[in-house]
Amino acid sequence: MTKIINSKELEEATLVKLTERGVDLEKIAEIVYLMQKNYNPNLTHELCLDSVKNVLKKREIQHAILVGIELDVLAERGALSEPLQSLIQEDESLFGCDETLALGASFGYGSIAIMTLGHLDKQKIGQIKELDTKSGEIHTFLDDLVACIAACAAGRIAHQQRDLHDSKLLNTPV
Amino acid sequence: MTKIINSKELEEATLVKLTERGVDLEKIAEIVYLMQKNYNPNLTHELCLDSVKNVLKKREIQHAILVGIELDVLAERGALSEPLQSLIQEDESLFGCDETLALGASFGYGSIAIMTLGHLDKQKIGQIKELDTKSGEIHTFLDDLVACIAACAAGRIAHQQRDLHDSKLLNTPV
Amino acid sequence: MTKIINSKELEEATLVKLTERGVDLEKIAEIVYLMQKNYNPNLTHELCLDSVKNVLKKREIQHAILVGIELDVLAERGALSEPLQSLIQEDESLFGCDETLALGASFGYGSIAIMTLGHLDKQKIGQIKELDTKSGEIHTFLDDLVACIAACAAGRIAHQQRDLHDSKLLNTPV
Amino acid sequence: MTKIINSKELEEATLVKLTERGVDLEKIAEIVYLMQKNYNPNLTHELCLDSVKNVLKKREIQHAILVGIELDVLAERGALSEPLQSLIQEDESLFGCDETLALGASFGYGSIAIMTLGHLDKQKIGQIKELDTKSGEIHTFLDDLVACIAACAAGRIAHQQRDLHDSKLLNTPV
Repeated sequence: MTKIINSKELEEATLVKLTERGVDLEKIAEIVYLMQKNYNPNLTHELCLDSVKNVLKKREIQHAILVGIELDVLAERGALSEPLQSLIQEDESLFGCDETLALGASFGYGSIAIMTLGHLDKQKIGQIKELDTKSGEIHTFLDDLVACIAACAAGRIAHQQRDLHDSKLLNTPV
Repeated sequence: MTKIINSKELEEATLVKLTERGVDLEKIAEIVYLMQKNYNPNLTHELCLDSVKNVLKKREIQHAILVGIELDVLAERGALSEPLQSLIQEDESLFGCDETLALGASFGYGSIAIMTLGHLDKQKIGQIKELDTKSGEIHTFLDDLVACIAACAAGRIAHQQRDLHDSKLLNTPV
Repeated sequence: MTKIINSKELEEATLVKLTERGVDLEKIAEIVYLMQKNYNPNLTHELCLDSVKNVLKKREIQHAILVGIELDVLAERGALSEPLQSLIQEDESLFGCDETLALGASFGYGSIAIMTLGHLDKQKIGQIKELDTKSGEIHTFLDDLVACIAACAAGRIAHQQRDLHDSKLLNTPV
Repeated sequence: MTKIINSKELEEATLVKLTERGVDLEKIAEIVYLMQKNYNPNLTHELCLDSVKNVLKKREIQHAILVGIELDVLAERGALSEPLQSLIQEDESLFGCDETLALGASFGYGSIAIMTLGHLDKQKIGQIKELDTKSGEIHTFLDDLVACIAACAAGRIAHQQRDLHDSKLLNTPV
């Protein structure tokens, strides 16, 4: 029998996992704010948080988060087979699957999201840095996934602001 | 202490895992042959097998294989947390992380590899079909990874044939 | 002075260019139907056409179409500098920028769209085949873009059907 | 009659175009050095320049450069049709095809190259900044392509250093 996970279960499970792993949506919103404030003078923290929450409703993002956190947790427990256990445990710089998973999840939000992801991967700020440097815990995937959520929320705002601008210009509803 | 996995260990571990999961490099070579024979009249099965083996020396491919097989095996044992366990167990059509992992690993071999991967994902042939339909086992990631290996080996041959053609033309070593 | 092209102008310009180059949205809808009918028994041609039209409202798709058609047209007029003129004129198999542009535009619709694009690139059907083999005209970019539009419309339907299924299950509006 | 451009012509044409558009390979090497020096204490400017030159031998990179520069030059001459002319002329922030072309060309060098490209796209440094802010000229595509070349050369060095390390460890030739 095929059990189909519905979208509500999926979203709730994703949010629970993020909380369990110490991710704070408010802190992701701060990163989004830093990424977009130069382009949107009227940007508020609230709008950023709203964008983060919207991104987390998307199936591709949810799936990537569930896979990444699962691998981090299993590595923390030493439950993976070698050599994968060492690759994830040591956050091996050429591993790449963490970036690939985050990259694939960011594709849905356009080139601004993709480029912002790359930037946040190199210039780890705020919660991404906290996760990357937390001792005793393994966040090989999670720091890239948080960067991905922030990047997608930033890309989403950039497109939305343009849509809003156009709809005012054209006097049509968004 | 950081343990760095060297390239030899990584390659051997990858080949062992593939064999354990029933993958036959000869059968992947057959898929490569079918994908490239129309473009290369002199193509041999041996050249295809050689290309498969070369692709399997590449770090990105090895890492993706190790991650994908690990998740398949853990799902087979029921060792993943929900809802990820169900998503992978049922090979949920909108899951996407299996395709993302294969896609990321194929990027290194250019657009022919990427397009061939998409084709093999839709038109599952040979060993890809066998894996996809094997009952009692879970190959949610592995069928896409086999498609990826075949697609990369095909892309590699296409570029190599051109390089060979050019070097003859220019009378220079490849 | 910065001239910002609004979304309405952009959409209209895209539709005009597609028509000028002989693209028929009804024919793209037929490809979408063939790609998705096995997964959606209730699929109608109308729904496919509607999905094609929706995909064409998306900025990333519009931009890719405008760039690709421009290069095809300039190549047809012999107006590009060498060696790019020859590369596009001869639809050189290792060129890759045509696939890259289509791939980037398909990212927004998830892994089903990406994989379907690869499939249509290899197994050219319907209008894609017509464009690819039309003599006297250059459609190096356009055949991949038509494949991209069809692939995105197919991916969009797959996700939408699941959302519809979930909303019925959960008794909530989509 | 099909005219196949050989690899030597292609490489020379690419280097000529880059020079004509004011790109200095030494300056790209400086960006590579800044991106990689923290990971490779023994990195030299010479090694960076060598990596840049190697990246420019790759077909995917050459094709992307030829396409991007062609569109920049045509836009500078006002030779593109509207609305594409305005989109490229104004370096419209949501355009995306410039990033897509650079992204596709960087795929061949792994996730480090992709992430570095995103970083350089956001934090334009050295020659990338010079190109992005040069008045009177249009470098909508070129700044991203220079970022792409630098990112690929950086990714190439990262992988090469590891291969070197492994070969010493295993006492085998690279």
